[in-house]
Amino acid sequence: MSFKQARLASTPEPPYYAVIFTSQRTDGDRGYAYTAERMMELAAQQPGFLGAESVRDANGFGITVSYWSNQEAIAAWKAHVEHKPAQEAGKRVWYADYQLRIAKVERQYGKLLDHDREAPPATGAHGIP
Amino acid sequence: MSFKQARLASTPEPPYYAVIFTSQRTDGDRGYAYTAERMMELAAQQPGFLGAESVRDANGFGITVSYWSNQEAIAAWKAHVEHKPAQEAGKRVWYADYQLRIAKVERQYGKLLDHDREAPPATGAHGIP
Repeated sequence: MSFKQARLASTPEPPYYAVIFTSQRTDGDRGYAYTAERMMELAAQQPGFLGAESVRDANGFGITVSYWSNQEAIAAWKAHVEHKPAQEAGKRVWYADYQLRIAKVERQYGKLLDHDREAPPATGAHGIP
Repeated sequence: MSFKQARLASTPEPPYYAVIFTSQRTDGDRGYAYTAERMMELAAQQPGFLGAESVRDANGFGITVSYWSNQEAIAAWKAHVEHKPAQEAGKRVWYADYQLRIAKVERQYGKLLDHDREAPPATGAHGIP
């Protein structure tokens, strides 16, 4: 619930990891809303969880990005005993299609703290500024 | 327009880059819809553009993820002569808040082609499978 209220995630300085989950829902709830809420609560309790951002439109298309301190934390969450059956139900019932990408966040900037610099790729793009 | 129809982006094998743009719109259109559509058309024409996924809900919260072959392509698009004023208008008029993250996609899998393996972090997580 606190997740739903804070829509923009407040993440630490990179590097850290992002799991980009893009999905198209099937019609009807069939237990989806309850499980989605529960998974978000549970994810937020896992070691290495840094935050998440999630949105779904009226057509059932959605993007959820969760942020993690490292790949080990992502693997542990993927293997979580309560998360596994939710993944299976997602594949079989709730999602007509989905794509999941694991990415290493190298840089970030926002409206209030725009610390992006010109020509970032050439100068220390992989380091912490 | 073709972008809007194909909601899930069809990306090549990693590695490639993702720009994760999370934003909260202000009220009212004020030229936003036209410019957003134009920027998507224009982005799709840039060298290194691989695809994009975008969703915004009725509360004005949105996530757009665009995919690029490398950081140079991202930097070139950021500096594009027609993109620059759109970024400024976004900062001043259209977005109450936003966060932009640049991340290197290392792995991906989907519903139809799930080539994820157990314990991926320990075994070649940075290589192409």
